[in-house]
Amino acid sequence: MNPAFLPSPAELSPLEVDRVVELALAEDLAAGDVTTRTVVPPDALARGVFAAREPMVLAGLSVAARVFARVDPRVTFSPRVADGARLAKGDVVAVIEGPAHGVLTGERSALNLLQRMCGVATLTRRFVDALGPSPRARITDTRKTNPGLRALDRYAVRAGGGHNHRNDLSSAVLIKDNHVAVCGGVRAAVERARRAAPHTMRIECEVQSLDELDEALAAGVDVLMLDNFDDAQTVEGVRRIRARAHQPVVEVSGGITLERVAALAAMGVDVLSVGALTHGARAVDIGLDLEVTGSWASTPG
Amino acid sequence: MNPAFLPSPAELSPLEVDRVVELALAEDLAAGDVTTRTVVPPDALARGVFAAREPMVLAGLSVAARVFARVDPRVTFSPRVADGARLAKGDVVAVIEGPAHGVLTGERSALNLLQRMCGVATLTRRFVDALGPSPRARITDTRKTNPGLRALDRYAVRAGGGHNHRNDLSSAVLIKDNHVAVCGGVRAAVERARRAAPHTMRIECEVQSLDELDEALAAGVDVLMLDNFDDAQTVEGVRRIRARAHQPVVEVSGGITLERVAALAAMGVDVLSVGALTHGARAVDIGLDLEVTGSWASTPG
Amino acid sequence: MNPAFLPSPAELSPLEVDRVVELALAEDLAAGDVTTRTVVPPDALARGVFAAREPMVLAGLSVAARVFARVDPRVTFSPRVADGARLAKGDVVAVIEGPAHGVLTGERSALNLLQRMCGVATLTRRFVDALGPSPRARITDTRKTNPGLRALDRYAVRAGGGHNHRNDLSSAVLIKDNHVAVCGGVRAAVERARRAAPHTMRIECEVQSLDELDEALAAGVDVLMLDNFDDAQTVEGVRRIRARAHQPVVEVSGGITLERVAALAAMGVDVLSVGALTHGARAVDIGLDLEVTGSWASTPG
Amino acid sequence: MNPAFLPSPAELSPLEVDRVVELALAEDLAAGDVTTRTVVPPDALARGVFAAREPMVLAGLSVAARVFARVDPRVTFSPRVADGARLAKGDVVAVIEGPAHGVLTGERSALNLLQRMCGVATLTRRFVDALGPSPRARITDTRKTNPGLRALDRYAVRAGGGHNHRNDLSSAVLIKDNHVAVCGGVRAAVERARRAAPHTMRIECEVQSLDELDEALAAGVDVLMLDNFDDAQTVEGVRRIRARAHQPVVEVSGGITLERVAALAAMGVDVLSVGALTHGARAVDIGLDLEVTGSWASTPG
Amino acid sequence: MNPAFLPSPAELSPLEVDRVVELALAEDLAAGDVTTRTVVPPDALARGVFAAREPMVLAGLSVAARVFARVDPRVTFSPRVADGARLAKGDVVAVIEGPAHGVLTGERSALNLLQRMCGVATLTRRFVDALGPSPRARITDTRKTNPGLRALDRYAVRAGGGHNHRNDLSSAVLIKDNHVAVCGGVRAAVERARRAAPHTMRIECEVQSLDELDEALAAGVDVLMLDNFDDAQTVEGVRRIRARAHQPVVEVSGGITLERVAALAAMGVDVLSVGALTHGARAVDIGLDLEVTGSWASTPG
Amino acid sequence: MNPAFLPSPAELSPLEVDRVVELALAEDLAAGDVTTRTVVPPDALARGVFAAREPMVLAGLSVAARVFARVDPRVTFSPRVADGARLAKGDVVAVIEGPAHGVLTGERSALNLLQRMCGVATLTRRFVDALGPSPRARITDTRKTNPGLRALDRYAVRAGGGHNHRNDLSSAVLIKDNHVAVCGGVRAAVERARRAAPHTMRIECEVQSLDELDEALAAGVDVLMLDNFDDAQTVEGVRRIRARAHQPVVEVSGGITLERVAALAAMGVDVLSVGALTHGARAVDIGLDLEVTGSWASTPG
Repeated sequence: MNPAFLPSPAELSPLEVDRVVELALAEDLAAGDVTTRTVVPPDALARGVFAAREPMVLAGLSVAARVFARVDPRVTFSPRVADGARLAKGDVVAVIEGPAHGVLTGERSALNLLQRMCGVATLTRRFVDALGPSPRARITDTRKTNPGLRALDRYAVRAGGGHNHRNDLSSAVLIKDNHVAVCGGVRAAVERARRAAPHTMRIECEVQSLDELDEALAAGVDVLMLDNFDDAQTVEGVRRIRARAHQPVVEVSGGITLERVAALAAMGVDVLSVGALTHGARAVDIGLDLEVTGSWASTPG
Repeated sequence: MNPAFLPSPAELSPLEVDRVVELALAEDLAAGDVTTRTVVPPDALARGVFAAREPMVLAGLSVAARVFARVDPRVTFSPRVADGARLAKGDVVAVIEGPAHGVLTGERSALNLLQRMCGVATLTRRFVDALGPSPRARITDTRKTNPGLRALDRYAVRAGGGHNHRNDLSSAVLIKDNHVAVCGGVRAAVERARRAAPHTMRIECEVQSLDELDEALAAGVDVLMLDNFDDAQTVEGVRRIRARAHQPVVEVSGGITLERVAALAAMGVDVLSVGALTHGARAVDIGLDLEVTGSWASTPG
Repeated sequence: MNPAFLPSPAELSPLEVDRVVELALAEDLAAGDVTTRTVVPPDALARGVFAAREPMVLAGLSVAARVFARVDPRVTFSPRVADGARLAKGDVVAVIEGPAHGVLTGERSALNLLQRMCGVATLTRRFVDALGPSPRARITDTRKTNPGLRALDRYAVRAGGGHNHRNDLSSAVLIKDNHVAVCGGVRAAVERARRAAPHTMRIECEVQSLDELDEALAAGVDVLMLDNFDDAQTVEGVRRIRARAHQPVVEVSGGITLERVAALAAMGVDVLSVGALTHGARAVDIGLDLEVTGSWASTPG
Repeated sequence: MNPAFLPSPAELSPLEVDRVVELALAEDLAAGDVTTRTVVPPDALARGVFAAREPMVLAGLSVAARVFARVDPRVTFSPRVADGARLAKGDVVAVIEGPAHGVLTGERSALNLLQRMCGVATLTRRFVDALGPSPRARITDTRKTNPGLRALDRYAVRAGGGHNHRNDLSSAVLIKDNHVAVCGGVRAAVERARRAAPHTMRIECEVQSLDELDEALAAGVDVLMLDNFDDAQTVEGVRRIRARAHQPVVEVSGGITLERVAALAAMGVDVLSVGALTHGARAVDIGLDLEVTGSWASTPG
Repeated sequence: MNPAFLPSPAELSPLEVDRVVELALAEDLAAGDVTTRTVVPPDALARGVFAAREPMVLAGLSVAARVFARVDPRVTFSPRVADGARLAKGDVVAVIEGPAHGVLTGERSALNLLQRMCGVATLTRRFVDALGPSPRARITDTRKTNPGLRALDRYAVRAGGGHNHRNDLSSAVLIKDNHVAVCGGVRAAVERARRAAPHTMRIECEVQSLDELDEALAAGVDVLMLDNFDDAQTVEGVRRIRARAHQPVVEVSGGITLERVAALAAMGVDVLSVGALTHGARAVDIGLDLEVTGSWASTPG
Repeated sequence: MNPAFLPSPAELSPLEVDRVVELALAEDLAAGDVTTRTVVPPDALARGVFAAREPMVLAGLSVAARVFARVDPRVTFSPRVADGARLAKGDVVAVIEGPAHGVLTGERSALNLLQRMCGVATLTRRFVDALGPSPRARITDTRKTNPGLRALDRYAVRAGGGHNHRNDLSSAVLIKDNHVAVCGGVRAAVERARRAAPHTMRIECEVQSLDELDEALAAGVDVLMLDNFDDAQTVEGVRRIRARAHQPVVEVSGGITLERVAALAAMGVDVLSVGALTHGARAVDIGLDLEVTGSWASTPG
């Protein structure tokens, strides 16, 4: 595959891609493809085109490529565009060519992964576009990802122009309502976190009211998550935060629809975290049409 | 957990449940929960209630239970209803009790899985209900499941009153358009499958037109999938199929919306396969509210 | 390896082959090959011939090839015949060439797998040949396969001219005596299965007597398994089945020896399922003789 | 399970047992047991008896027990005899009781493993018995085990009264013909091994002739493997070996049948290694008959 | 095990503990413990005491406990102190009791893990103690951990009174010299990170000189790592940093010995990251002495 | 990589290397390298040199090479010396070249493994050198290796000129004090082992006193381990052993420092087993300095 289409290992861990592809194929290929085995001549060669059947933002080419490489290394998968591209209905995503058995056997696993990732990227793009041009605010994902597919979900969010929130429970401090309830108050929680959490992490705290917001500010929190605040509360919250010297980051969360995005950004919010990017995305429609191009018997070598 | 709430191993493989739970936790818990570790006293005990925040059909209790058992066996997870139940907003799903660290650490992984499975069950239930009471036709899933979660997706479909289509490429013969394209015709494909496929399988063939339908019938196919037929084509297709002595099963697929379901069933169709059950389901909203109930220091034993 | 010798991924899942090879090598190579390490110069190059030491049907070339590729990619394994071929004593199976360490280290793992698969294929071939030329009936395997090696066992059965029965518990309905005992009768069991099993599956029921056979026929079963019927019972069973309009498939099982095969087929049976194909097969004898061909020190590049 | 029936972790690694059971169930249970799920009421309770259907030596009880524990921990598996016992046709092996779904779902996986292990133990016992009472010589296995099942195969050999040869390539030095061929002679090979192999290992060398035997003796080998020697060669070989001061161990290998065993032992051989113990064993016949004993609905708790 | 001795899942992931224990045992137990199997009666019961053979800080009790639970659940492992405790030579760590086979088989794996973790905790404690009472500065680990054991290494650092640095490449931004070299300067690197890194992370930058330090401060970095600065440079660096309004965190790294720790802290440094905590720790000495206490034959039940 | 630098699969199992590399990368790369991703242009190409920052013996080149191959196959890693080489400060170990993302992402994992292995090899070399030229005695490792890294530790010991002791509990008989305590005496233990252990193994017994030594000699043990004997005891022990006809191997263990090595060898000891080779080794210092060499945009192909 042309390296220009391949995300770097820093972007998307090849171990994660391989793990997911292995899992998807083990689940679908199981003990072999009985239809292809019984119906299709083993030496048939095929050529096909993956095409967008609706407008979308692309994400996951290297994952689809890896599916076919794992199924049969003789199949070539040649992308025609790169992750992050905006496609119109009918645009060609990639061309595939090789032994028909391999192409047919990998088709559904590749599409399940690709359609899911494009779905996430496409929905993210809509949220990011709703911010308007050159936005100061960020759209981020949450941990409401598909179990087992988090790395791919989060990559797709970035391909759609979004940012990532914390990756997992060990990579950031986020004090939520249940932590506060169990620990006995916002101030105590923030101070404990400050004392013991790694110095590489900011301390973020979710607040449910302006009173909790004041308490968190007083405790010197780095990031405030305004949870399910209405517009008036959000405006007031941002005002109080901006009045502080150390300028904490303002995140809003809960009930963020495409319609509210621009208004929230205009209120001075820095981060809009949207669980729906991943748990509300639907698979977009990508098709594959094949034609026979010959058989090995008729090809040299 | 009360055995009445537990699906049997024949219903849902415990190996699959464990595998998915392991994966979800590895991904989210990673190197530990830095927030809980730094903020919550290690000997705090908590009690909480999982409650439906919108109407839903329940699926996945044993998966959520397994998350907490894996995180900390001292946490008890007690369901109040069983998979398949219809819940109203506010209904209690389960009560959880034990060390606060374990409860907080497992919360998101349990909810991600449970909300996804309930989402699939709820959407399936809507399709099944649209068939009307005591329907003769079935709603089934497809292979458009979440990679790595197929067993759970398919269990959720059944919890919602749906049926399963083939599980994977090795468990049924389904000749699709690309097989026909590569193999050179419906008749040849069906006959080859008949000769070589296991005798435990019916031979299913997707047809794109009434001509292909006739060809498949002539070849003695067992199940016909009418792909993207409009209503008139479907009526005519069913008429031609019902005229045959061996009574093949009639499946329709493609573009099946809630609105069309009853009409399609009335046309005499046996099976409506709906990819959206799994690839179009969104996570439903389930909440967990915790309170502290003491600490180990204050409990005997 | 010449692609003509390689089964397609639809025939034999590359994930299964890799999994088995990984397992076999982990078990045998363990922490390294102490004999080869201490005895053989690390730069020695060797060439060897795998040859049949008795007549056999070949199966498993790609598995043996994969062993050596995993041990040392510089070893070349070149088949001289293809899976399914009938070999006489002395026939060459494959030629191997490369670093002597890699060849010696992989030898036993490759042979263990290849000899087992050839053993299954060879025994299957004997059963299939016993049916006579152009048989209407099939010889099939059962689930009595080697734990962990089912995909390979079943592939070997097909290489020997046999067919596969169901792959696993989730890929077909087969109501056995213990199901009937627990469920309370053949009729109830068949009807329950019909209502709930996927529409892609035929319903098969094992019967122990002609009375059970009548009950299963009345319930509209698709496949009948006559379990341990003697010849007279089999003849009468087939007669009753053939009298039905919907023509169920007739399978016989239990005590099927090479001697009875032709007679059973002549009685009109469709399927003879033979557990011995896999649980009674013995490894056939294949030898490898090596010679030194030089050392890297003496080769350019 | 009564601990008296359980092999210690030193005898049979619980990690190996769990790994094999996991593999066998993943392969057979796959996405669930569609027959049991659709046919058997989920709350049915059953009781059954595993009984020998032919004479055999028992091996593998803890493996069968582990299958059911993994499928459903509510199933109890109670052995009536211990590994190593000689059973007559009809003897009870174990009693099983619990939810019918769990029993039916685990049955085949448990039997496949148990029947294989008993097959190996039974065949080994025949070879050991052929040595006569209180034999000085040993019957041992080889590395010709079932890929992935070596630990179980070797345990079964011991349950049948046999001994183990080396476990894998890293646990002993055994210089075979191909090592000699590549390394340039018996003496060089033995001396190199002596210099570099761990001091915990004896040095064993396979010899193809009396000349090679003399060369190996001169090189001070610890164990001699007489490969495919006829009786006269064996007698002469043993004579030459016994004439040495350091008394190497004498092993014979190749073509060792039940008929030759006593004679070979009488010639003064120490070890008879028999590949057939594992690669030639067939599964013995063990049956399970079930009856319904009630349902959970009718049981308290 | 008494829950007071058990770290919570937020502290130490049970998945990581199980994974490591599984790995250690697979590696050491392999195909069984041939010495114990051949030498020790299978029904012997033993009791033993783990005792410190030198002064140490304890870490890893739950890991050692898990080794024995995995080997034989009938073995009880009862800690007498908790992780983090300072032990003198001769202090009892834990008492073990149960079947001798299980105790002997797990001993080395348990000790390898426990001695390593105590070694890390003990060395960390020495560094922390060198800071003096109630220190404002922190001692932290680095990513120079034992491959595969990072979660355990980092837990041990905390048990010794240290703090953790970032866990892995995805959990924090740390711009090092090679990043600066490839990216073309400190300022560009910091600004790019600020734009794209998750808002939960501080931006840390390693600087090699006071000029780079100024550049990083100007770019608004959150954490400065002074790499291999001598004392004079460190004093001047801290002075410049403290002059900034936003008060970045000051970390020193490279060549930090026990002797320099107090002085560096006195210079106003916040964090001292010490690779030696993990890559320079040696296993401390813990002994196990066993005695026989009977046999199962002589115990009821 | 030049094959001359690659250990053969008999030396170092490629499965072990892959397993460890996979583990190390999964742990460190996790969900991607956030610093490299945000800071470094994705098309930057870099070149760097791995150089020794202190004198050392090299071990682990193929492991480091495998890290980069796994991260990004476009990165080339070219060793300049071979495992076993003695390096001075400043000597070049290897040159690396390719996409900067891959190089930066794999750097720490490769160094952690390489520095550890070189640390073991270097320490071993010091012990071996202390024996003097052409020593008759061996320095060996023990089972006190890093959990999960045993194969690499033991390879590194050999690269440093040492020998391996037994690999694991199943590959040799070593009767230790706890076995003797549980079994009731040295003589009984040795005789039981002789009867039941594989004939490929020598029987080794640890002795704590000259009386136990006499008992072990009388029982005909093959290898004696003198545990924590002082010099006088060692001299007397060797004298008694050399007086026996069958010449057992003499191993000393416990408290073996660099200072005592030559003296112990001079006393006639055969084997000095030193746990510190692996549990006391520290990572040596190897550096990597990178420079940018261009970008893909500017390279053809």
